[in-house]
Formats: sequence, structure tokens, C-alpha cells
Amino acid sequence: MTEDKSRGWFGGSRETTQLDLERGTPVRHPAPDAGLALLDEGSAPAPSRDTVQVERSVFAAERVPSPAVSSGDRAPDPIGNTGSVDVSALRLRTVEQHLDEILGSVPQPDPIELAVLDAQGLLCAELVTSTRALPSFEQAGLDGYAVSSADIAAATVEAPVELAVVGESTAGSGERAAINAGLAQKVAVGAMMPAGADVVVPAAWTDQGAARVAVYAALAPGSYVRRTGDDVAPGDTAVQIGTPIGPAQISLLAAVGRERVSVRPRPRVSVLCAGDELVDVGATPGPGQIVDVNSYALAAAARDAGAEVYRAGILPGDPRRLTDLLESQLLRSDVVLIAGTFASGGADQLQEALHALGGMAFTQVAMHPGPLHAFGRLGHEQVPVICVPGEPVAALVAFEVFVRPAIRLMLGKRQLFRRTVQAVSAQQLLSPLGYRQYLHGQVMRHPDGGYVVEPIGDGDQAMLARMARANCLIVVDEDVTEVSAGGLVTVMPMLLGG
Amino acid sequence: MTEDKSRGWFGGSRETTQLDLERGTPVRHPAPDAGLALLDEGSAPAPSRDTVQVERSVFAAERVPSPAVSSGDRAPDPIGNTGSVDVSALRLRTVEQHLDEILGSVPQPDPIELAVLDAQGLLCAELVTSTRALPSFEQAGLDGYAVSSADIAAATVEAPVELAVVGESTAGSGERAAINAGLAQKVAVGAMMPAGADVVVPAAWTDQGAARVAVYAALAPGSYVRRTGDDVAPGDTAVQIGTPIGPAQISLLAAVGRERVSVRPRPRVSVLCAGDELVDVGATPGPGQIVDVNSYALAAAARDAGAEVYRAGILPGDPRRLTDLLESQLLRSDVVLIAGTFASGGADQLQEALHALGGMAFTQVAMHPGPLHAFGRLGHEQVPVICVPGEPVAALVAFEVFVRPAIRLMLGKRQLFRRTVQAVSAQQLLSPLGYRQYLHGQVMRHPDGGYVVEPIGDGDQAMLARMARANCLIVVDEDVTEVSAGGLVTVMPMLLGG
Repeated sequence: MTEDKSRGWFGGSRETTQLDLERGTPVRHPAPDAGLALLDEGSAPAPSRDTVQVERSVFAAERVPSPAVSSGDRAPDPIGNTGSVDVSALRLRTVEQHLDEILGSVPQPDPIELAVLDAQGLLCAELVTSTRALPSFEQAGLDGYAVSSADIAAATVEAPVELAVVGESTAGSGERAAINAGLAQKVAVGAMMPAGADVVVPAAWTDQGAARVAVYAALAPGSYVRRTGDDVAPGDTAVQIGTPIGPAQISLLAAVGRERVSVRPRPRVSVLCAGDELVDVGATPGPGQIVDVNSYALAAAARDAGAEVYRAGILPGDPRRLTDLLESQLLRSDVVLIAGTFASGGADQLQEALHALGGMAFTQVAMHPGPLHAFGRLGHEQVPVICVPGEPVAALVAFEVFVRPAIRLMLGKRQLFRRTVQAVSAQQLLSPLGYRQYLHGQVMRHPDGGYVVEPIGDGDQAMLARMARANCLIVVDEDVTEVSAGGLVTVMPMLLGG
Repeated sequence: MTEDKSRGWFGGSRETTQLDLERGTPVRHPAPDAGLALLDEGSAPAPSRDTVQVERSVFAAERVPSPAVSSGDRAPDPIGNTGSVDVSALRLRTVEQHLDEILGSVPQPDPIELAVLDAQGLLCAELVTSTRALPSFEQAGLDGYAVSSADIAAATVEAPVELAVVGESTAGSGERAAINAGLAQKVAVGAMMPAGADVVVPAAWTDQGAARVAVYAALAPGSYVRRTGDDVAPGDTAVQIGTPIGPAQISLLAAVGRERVSVRPRPRVSVLCAGDELVDVGATPGPGQIVDVNSYALAAAARDAGAEVYRAGILPGDPRRLTDLLESQLLRSDVVLIAGTFASGGADQLQEALHALGGMAFTQVAMHPGPLHAFGRLGHEQVPVICVPGEPVAALVAFEVFVRPAIRLMLGKRQLFRRTVQAVSAQQLLSPLGYRQYLHGQVMRHPDGGYVVEPIGDGDQAMLARMARANCLIVVDEDVTEVSAGGLVTVMPMLLGG
């Protein structure tokens, strides 16, 4: 970047503008580990700034009109738009305001009863209590010898107690044996305890004899015995409402005799995309046309988030067929997701159709990429319809920010949002004031326990190939215009499809 | 625990034996946050030991015969077993030795071609190159005004350059417009750039005029323009071999026109369980009988790990039907998983049937719970058959340790194992020398960035209800017999079903 120093500000390069998504000091050692090297001096390094970059940044803040807005105020249009909705007349709202409206409007689908294996990954919607005791009979807690604790009370390594071994009890033996004082029965883990025995001596504490066994240690009554109901007593709660059904819960449900269980169902999400420029993936795009990637990518993302997905594809241009398709999706879905309702060919018909079905609130959200969003509840059932930008990278970012939390809310999950971590930025990041910026990045763990993140690609547009290399979103808050190299930034790791 | 001080050693309690899975100093403040409080003094607290406990531990190590073994040596039977296999004659092997044999034997299923959405979550098995340029035409990188950079070279905030606005280009317009010098065209992100324009001026850097626009800043040629092939050029790699197919990859595959893609398939895993004591979940267990939970739990775990699962249920007692069922599963599966081949009713017939199909190597693995394992390659196709203990908790631990990595290897995943973290143990843990111990626990993040773990339940048997409350496995290495409260321990977080 040295050559940039000799250039003038505006004439110089694209790297120094406020709207740049990320630019700035490149990593000094562009080896794969360069980002990690930044942390060598300590786990919370002091910001190391490139003076030239800082000057530029200050300069930019003074000279370029900032798209600063007070949230909620009617604001000038910071990023112009040519669609049929008058974007400049739209209220600007914060990410939280838009998210709150969506989360406040999604339905809570009624619980359904599923076979336990089909319930996997869903949240239990009933309080499952056991009508049984688990174990249902007194059984050996490990392999060894069932004896009476009184018989071995004096046993030590120096003076073992010898007992005669009478038979053997394996798991599944249906009849309860009995032993008299002075006798032992060899038992396998899970085997029914013989009457007269109250402890299992672990084999390792004996000479492991077959006809007679020498016991080296005394044990308190009940040692290594699983008492009836030790695990679950009749009436005990086996699975609570809201518990995610995983292998351990399935194990427990089966054990208490449940073949079916009531769960929060997967929300049904229809995915549509709009735009006269779109052709399906099988077609060869003509001039100005592009392949519909959004209905595929959003369908995959919605399924990844836990939804049952209908990929309904490209909305037709014909108004009658458009309305028919929208209505059929409203009937079958808990949520309808549409990518690309603004600023594309056919936007007028679509907006009319949406209006006729109940009306959408078109809105500018103070975020980048993709500030243009819409939300409404359409049709007889007032089904939530979420419109996200048509630009594929912005569409998937909008999915992460608004749709994934909504799907998780419908699933009943307590944790709606991905966990975020603070990471050291390997590069300077610039961000427009007043907008929350989401950048794709690669985050890696630092051996010392922290994280380092590098934005993907060379900046001003996050494209598909770059997005496909990302493993996180970097989130730069509305009031931050610059994150210096070495500074801390919020990172949302995404383990999609991996 | 104060009253224990007055008791003798062996006669006193079960809490102080080497075979105890976990015992020791309870958390001093048994409030929900008690574990976290341990970290208050610093992020790497010095071990705080309870003197009485330490004495007991030393005492135990001196007095109780230890199941110590040299790995790989023929060893005495440390945990006796009453099954038909002569367990005491089995070589003891380490967890790694058993795992290595399994991982070295699992097949690599041939790639299959799937529709892109069905490929979600799988690993790409072909090098996908693009025959197209993305974008396929020069387009606006954001909403604004397409102009010639030469026209605005002198533009500043103080002296804006005014240009006449001619028309508007939205995404999907099929025909390329052209502008002459001194003119601007309003463009939406994704719209085709008019000939004659080489930059897009962001709307925020203009007065956003309709007929005429005042531009406040100069831009380098190419600024905010997506050039043809900027994202992907013809011949570029779109998706590499081994890349997990997530929404971003599906987006890119669609964009380059791929409807189908070759992926590593989900391995087909049959899940069976053995034992005359077993009844299916719908039945009411009689005396000594227990419900088959393993075929459900292991099926869920295998599906969670990425396998396509057949839950074939309980193996029949009749030798002919037993062999028929085994053979049919060998034919349809990449791996057969059987729980409970030892020490249960019907073990003889099962072991004979397995022997007739190619032979199993029965083995003791130096781990707890569930040291008894078996592995073989059976049938014409030499299908790997993995036998895990029948005790449900031990079965799921064995799945985690041996089967999940095998499934991930067949899926082609690079990361076979769950990530482990070091956590501060909130309680003292005791572990048998020479055995790797896996304990279910609850791990939580400490606000300072570390982790704290508490074992689940009161110890000597990890049961179903306790396992269902766990979110991690605590791993205590073979050569560790004690982890003091406040000491560091290895933890394997498990996000099953959540």
C-alpha cells in the first residue's frame, strides 16, 4: 500500500472511502499464519495503527457526507435505490427494530406427536413422566461378585475373606437367585442381584476365583448395586418440556416405554425469489439474466436452521399466476421467504400482488449489505412473509440476521442467535456510520485461546466465491466507522453445512 | 462429607475406591454458580485440594490392587466378566489401538451424484469448475449513479461535479444502455453497467438528484463496478474436492449452472442389539427384562453423526434367523453396529453366528465405562462390524469414541473428532489407573473465557437420566488417577440433538 501515500485522497483509490466494506492495512506477513502472529505479543494486544490509514480515515470522516441517521427518524436515502418502491421515503429502522417485528409475528406451530426417532433434533413439547422404575429390578452395577456386605466386613488385602462361588448371573436371567451367608455369586453388569446379596465386589478387588473367591476389601451396603428406581422412579420426570431430543433423550424415552413423543414441529418455510432477470439453474442465462441462486441457497439455509422447506422457485411475471403461487405458498407454510422484491424487473406486479394479499411494510434497515427489506402478514391465516434483498450475498446475510432466529423461535429454541466471539482483526476495517455492517471472514483460533479474524477477499463487494470461503460474519456496529488492525471486533462463527 | 472423617477406610463408604467414577470434594457453595466461583481468583487457579481427600487417595493407591497394565501387554482381567468369551484371556488394548483398527478398516464409499439441495451437509467429491463468468456482464456493485470516472475527476464536496441523469438501469434489463461524456445513469445494484461508464458513484456521495446529480467525490476507474468474471472466471474452481456443501456452496453451484454435484455419500449404518433380556420399546418388560434402548439411541447418534441409518432392532435368539438378519444387514450396510454382544443371554449363539460370517476379534479396551468391545469384517464384502457394550451409557460413550469418528471418516470429513477444551473441574475426580475414563458432565463457559465442568450425578454409575442432563464427556487419561477440585481436565462438549 506504500504507493498510495503519494496519491491524492479522492483521486487515489477506492480503498479509502467510507462505504468501502473493508480496506486498510494489509497483514504485514501475508503467510497463512500472519493473523495469528498479531497475537504473539499478548492475548489482548494494544491496537497497532497505521498512521497513514488513520489520517485517511479522519480525513474521510471530515470530508465525505456521512450517511449518519438517528435511528427511527425519517432519514435521507443513504444508499439510493431505483426500484418501484420509493425507498427514499422509507423510514430507516435499526436491525433490532426489524428483527423485533419479525420475531413478534411468527406463529408458534402446535405440537405434533412423532415416533421418537423422528423427534430427533426437535424440542420436547410434553412433560414425559415415567410409569416405570429404572432399573426395574435390583441389578449389578459392574462385573464382579454379589455378596453380603456383612460377610466381607473384615476383608483387607492382608486378610482377604474367602467365599464359595455359587453360579453366575448374566443380564437377562429372568429368575431371581438367592445366596446364603458365606456365599458369592458371579454377576455381570446389569444382572439381577441375588436375594441375600447387598453389594457387588468389583472383580479387581478379588482373586477372580471361579469356585472360591478371595475378597480384598470391605464395602458399604449397597455398593455397586443399582437399586430399583435408582435411575428413574415411577412418576419421575424423564424428559422436560423444551428439552432438545438427542440420542440420550431417545435412550431415556425408549427406556420408559415411549414409542412416540410430542414435539415442537419443524416450521414449514416456502422459499421464493422474484425478478424478471432470473432463470432457473438448468437454463443458460441470456444477456442481463442471472441464474436463480437464492431459492437454492435460502432453502439450504432454512433447512440448516431446522425448517421443513419448500423451494417454490422463481415467481412468475404473469400477475394471475404470481398471485396463485403466492396464495398456495401461504396455505402450506408457516413462513414465506421471498428474495428480491425491490428494484428488479417485475417488482411492480409483485408489490401489487403482495399488497392485495394483505400488504407489506417496505423498509430500510440500517445494515450493510442489503438495507432493503420488507415484512408483512398475508392471507387469511396472516402468514408472516419476509422479503430479503435479491443480491445473493445480502440475501444470505439477511437470512442469518432475521430468518434463522425466527425459525429457531418457531422451533422453540431458547438460543435464537449464534454465539458471537470477540476476535482480533488482522486488518483494518472501515464501516459506514449509522449502519451495522456484516462482512464475511475467516476466523481462526489462536493457540493462546483467543480468535483472529480476516475479512474475505479484497473488499468492496462480498461475492459468491468469497462468501463460500468464509466461516464467519464479522459484525461492525452502527457507531463504529473503523476497526484498526489488531483491534477487537465481534465475530459470528457459522458452521453451515460442515 | 465431614462425617466421613471418622470412618475407617474400606468400611467407611463407597466414595473412596479407585473404581469410583467420580467422588470427592463437593462444591463448597452448591449454588448454581458455585463452579464458576472457583475461577474468581484468576483464570488458571492453583489446584485447591482437600487434605482428607488427598490422604484417602494416596491410601487407596497403596492399598487396593490397581488394574494397572502396560498397554498392549497381556494383562490380568481388571474388571471381571461372566460372558461366554473368556474375557480374562483377551489382550488389553488402548483406546487408540482399537480406534486405529476401526478407522483403518472402514470403507470409503464411492461418490454419488445428487441434486445440489440433497448434497447439503455432504462433502464435494469433484472439482467443480465454472464454464461461465460470474458476473456474466459488467454490473453495478451498489445503488448509485453510473458515470465516467474522467467526468468526476475534479469532484469535491466544495466543488461538486454536476451531471445530467439519463434513464435508469435496474437488475434484469436485458439490453445494454450507453451514456456519453457528461451524463450519468441511475443504477441499482446488479444492474448492467451502461457503456461509457466505468464507475458507480454511491448515492450517499451525491445529492441523489433525479434529472441532474451533483457528485461530491472522485473515484478511481472501476470503483463499485463488478467486472465480468470478477467473482468467478470461466475455468475457475467453484467448489474444491472435500469442501462441505453448505448454503454458500449451493449458491455458487447454482450460479455456475450446476443442478447436480458429486459428493461423498452418507455411510449406511445398520444398528442392531443383542440380548435375550431385551424387549422392544412397545412391550412391557417382564422380570429381568429390559427395553431395547440401544438400537434407538445408537440410531439417533449415528444419524446425528451423518449416517443413513437402518434400525434393525433386536437380534433374534433363533440361530437361523439370527444369521439371516446379520447377513441381510451386511448386504445393505457400509458398517454394522451391534450393542451388547458380551455377557448377555444369547451371547453364545451370536458369537457363533459372527464367527461363521468371518470372525470377530473380541477385545478389552482400557477404558471406562464399557471395556468390552469387538471388531471384525464380515461377509463377502468384508463389511466392518463394530460391537459396543450393551449397557446403554457405555454404548453411547463407545459410539462417541469409536463409531462417530468412523462415520465422519467415511463422510470424508477432515475433523474426525470433537473439539476438546480444558476445563476447571468443580469437583475432585478419581479414575482407575491404566484406564481412560469418560464421565458425563455439564460444562459451562466462564465469563473470563475459560470453562468449568461438573460431573453429572453422584457418581458410581452414570445412568440414563443423568446422561440425558449432560452436555459433555469429561476425559481422564489413563495415567491420571485423581483430578483435584480446581484442577484442569479435558472436556469434549457434545451438542447432540440441540
